[in-house]
Amino acid sequence: MCKEFISAGAFKGNNPAEVVQACDMTFACVSDSTAVKDLVFGNFGVLQGITKGKCYIEMSTIDEDTMQDVAEAINARGGVFLEAPVVGSRVPALEGQLIILASGDRKLFDDCYTCFEAIAKKFLFLGPEIGGATRMKLIVNMIMGTTMASLAEGMAMAEKVGLDQEDVAEVLSLGSLSCPTVIHKSQAILNQKYDPHFPLMHQQKDLRLALLLGDKVEQPLYVASAANELYKKARRLGYADSDIAAVYRAASS
Amino acid sequence: MCKEFISAGAFKGNNPAEVVQACDMTFACVSDSTAVKDLVFGNFGVLQGITKGKCYIEMSTIDEDTMQDVAEAINARGGVFLEAPVVGSRVPALEGQLIILASGDRKLFDDCYTCFEAIAKKFLFLGPEIGGATRMKLIVNMIMGTTMASLAEGMAMAEKVGLDQEDVAEVLSLGSLSCPTVIHKSQAILNQKYDPHFPLMHQQKDLRLALLLGDKVEQPLYVASAANELYKKARRLGYADSDIAAVYRAASS
Amino acid sequence: MCKEFISAGAFKGNNPAEVVQACDMTFACVSDSTAVKDLVFGNFGVLQGITKGKCYIEMSTIDEDTMQDVAEAINARGGVFLEAPVVGSRVPALEGQLIILASGDRKLFDDCYTCFEAIAKKFLFLGPEIGGATRMKLIVNMIMGTTMASLAEGMAMAEKVGLDQEDVAEVLSLGSLSCPTVIHKSQAILNQKYDPHFPLMHQQKDLRLALLLGDKVEQPLYVASAANELYKKARRLGYADSDIAAVYRAASS
Amino acid sequence: MCKEFISAGAFKGNNPAEVVQACDMTFACVSDSTAVKDLVFGNFGVLQGITKGKCYIEMSTIDEDTMQDVAEAINARGGVFLEAPVVGSRVPALEGQLIILASGDRKLFDDCYTCFEAIAKKFLFLGPEIGGATRMKLIVNMIMGTTMASLAEGMAMAEKVGLDQEDVAEVLSLGSLSCPTVIHKSQAILNQKYDPHFPLMHQQKDLRLALLLGDKVEQPLYVASAANELYKKARRLGYADSDIAAVYRAASS
Repeated sequence: MCKEFISAGAFKGNNPAEVVQACDMTFACVSDSTAVKDLVFGNFGVLQGITKGKCYIEMSTIDEDTMQDVAEAINARGGVFLEAPVVGSRVPALEGQLIILASGDRKLFDDCYTCFEAIAKKFLFLGPEIGGATRMKLIVNMIMGTTMASLAEGMAMAEKVGLDQEDVAEVLSLGSLSCPTVIHKSQAILNQKYDPHFPLMHQQKDLRLALLLGDKVEQPLYVASAANELYKKARRLGYADSDIAAVYRAASS
Repeated sequence: MCKEFISAGAFKGNNPAEVVQACDMTFACVSDSTAVKDLVFGNFGVLQGITKGKCYIEMSTIDEDTMQDVAEAINARGGVFLEAPVVGSRVPALEGQLIILASGDRKLFDDCYTCFEAIAKKFLFLGPEIGGATRMKLIVNMIMGTTMASLAEGMAMAEKVGLDQEDVAEVLSLGSLSCPTVIHKSQAILNQKYDPHFPLMHQQKDLRLALLLGDKVEQPLYVASAANELYKKARRLGYADSDIAAVYRAASS
Repeated sequence: MCKEFISAGAFKGNNPAEVVQACDMTFACVSDSTAVKDLVFGNFGVLQGITKGKCYIEMSTIDEDTMQDVAEAINARGGVFLEAPVVGSRVPALEGQLIILASGDRKLFDDCYTCFEAIAKKFLFLGPEIGGATRMKLIVNMIMGTTMASLAEGMAMAEKVGLDQEDVAEVLSLGSLSCPTVIHKSQAILNQKYDPHFPLMHQQKDLRLALLLGDKVEQPLYVASAANELYKKARRLGYADSDIAAVYRAASS
Repeated sequence: MCKEFISAGAFKGNNPAEVVQACDMTFACVSDSTAVKDLVFGNFGVLQGITKGKCYIEMSTIDEDTMQDVAEAINARGGVFLEAPVVGSRVPALEGQLIILASGDRKLFDDCYTCFEAIAKKFLFLGPEIGGATRMKLIVNMIMGTTMASLAEGMAMAEKVGLDQEDVAEVLSLGSLSCPTVIHKSQAILNQKYDPHFPLMHQQKDLRLALLLGDKVEQPLYVASAANELYKKARRLGYADSDIAAVYRAASS
């Protein structure tokens, strides 16, 4: 895939530092905190390419502390930093319909306009404080994970009381909870198809991080913590790598 | 309003028995179990008008036991019974966009086709066993109530971590949880407007009934039971008659 | 056993009514609400023997509503009523070391002094209102059931993290939680001996009643409700008739 | 106090390194992980005094990771390490009635016999793996914290249903849950005396660590996680520095 970009005129750096040196603005999106740290702090990493005025946009979803460390290191070398995790999975990405949550340098956010417009249907600037975008994402994923867990409990009970789960899915799809998550995940449960759109262990990790955030700010989260334990149970049953819909297995076991 | 129907040619009975005597099929929808029992078992009540072949369609949302009692009494006098609670609140009702969940006599369900079509966008027959439609409704409301409670926890945490709740509402409205409940209730929280579309004490009652149903069939419901306790807290804070969105007050207190 | 009493001079009535007619004060203790209602309201039942001034002491543990019904019926015939459930199981009963919780007629409570002294180490008068003693018992059993559930979670985790459960039991028996419940139930878990001292389904029923009481008085019970769901899970796994210690099976599954 | 030891013949080192150099076995017990790290890894710290065969016994209660780091550093310099946190608070300490939980070097554990005997009524060796003693302590404190939270819910409900909390405390003190925690903490609630025997924020921290341990080993902890949220609520209400009994304030709010 890299070849296509090159044949279209793109420059290929031999390492992260070279890429950053060649560009005014660099966008990065990798899998997790470890990958981010390797990329930024490693040999010939991003940091070695940062000079005064260089812009770095971190789009990975990682923990707040690592995000802070990266931001500080970039800023210390005179660089400009934007935290910009995305909401949305494969399909919205392919269709340029992601949502971008951003925190950090406001001017850089504005300068990203045309780039963001190409991949997202919406981008929000949440303020200059690093961490804000990550906190937003944790809250949104906490609500999603809890709703998923509740759907799982409902579908499990439906079976126990002798209702047809297809009927439950249909009623839900017609009512006031009708949304992509409820529609797709109730189908996943019906069809027992748990191929990972969003892996369960990532959902549980996000719930854990959201609960620890609640701990930090003294916000009790009774419902989310119960959901979190149900996801732990699903992991125990062997569904860590399955889709979040597999939390149904924990609810129905 | 009754006058308009009469001037349009409708017959007005002096009591429930008279109405049932005059009609082949009678539809009833009142507020709660007590009202249902008065209507059916009271003096000059429905039961006194039931003779062989008379059809009675109970559209009230009540507990399963009362529904059984009514069905048995109607059947014992030779009547035909259909349990048919509706999903949807004021606006769908006005627009003829309700969802009807039905259990009981299949032929009667089919005979209701044109009547149901006038008020509902969808009607499902869930089987001959009385109670099935009520159980379906409890499950759907359990998922709704838990999702609402999770939304409340998320909005409460947003405030605690310094995010703008309007931003959370916007992100949710754009993402995979975008549905009428999430959209309208996050607005209600934002605007602190808790006028009752669905009163909180009814939601909590439905959660209690769903949990007791889970108890009966040995289905643990960890997430729903945590949500139920949060609604109890909201009642304690004085929000029994407010909209379910007021569970936010319990989450943020 | 009845024979021994008779040979010692006791009178044997042919039915409850005869017993009550022959005595100033009658003590009753049977298994559940149904048995209580049969005994009191049945043919030749207690109620038929009650005349002005007759004293009736109900020591069964039953629901508050049935207790109220019995009290009202006794009082309506001029009888005097005392609600007096006991705390303690087989061994304390044999040793005369029960605890009696009483509500109702204060004078009757005082008159029971010598009788209560023979079977209990302690008896408390909780006020004239019928239901108070039952509420006290539900609260005490709620704390017991939740502590048992927590012990089960701790023992389950001990096994998961590679600790010897015997060591956990020993440390608990030496520390500030050292009490008969913690000591005996951790031994039961260790030895996987779940013969019923207090059947799990009764514990779960008491938790359910305690949660409904909390519902009535708007008292959220987050911890007890989580424990209740764990007991439901244990019932689902087939341990309804086992000892409460079998909730460990739910925690470790 | 140090003076008394010196006049009794003790050697006083000018820094941790000197103390370790002068002794075969050094016992340390400080407040938290930060203090432990300063003591061991700081300038003129413990580590600089460790040579082949020196024994170091860490009695502080800290997180498992720090414990591992210290053990590895001591071992790497040829030292011998024992992890030995204690169970018990002020009074047992003064009376030499602590419980010592130990992991690490078995021979060193045996060599500590006379020292341990002087301060503890019981000491258990839990195996060679570092972390085991800490895990045991977390499990024991998790059960304690959950029992305390349940007691708080029970006492809160007692007040709501019109029972005298003194009566509840008395019944509990006579029944099968009669233990120092239940007896003392119900008195603390009664008297609203929350001076810290065990500070609430430490209990909540221990619950958090226990839940994270459960997360690591895939052990769902529904009851403990509900208790944890209640302690967060108590912190929010301003009781972080109060005794754990102040969780009652969260339960009754």
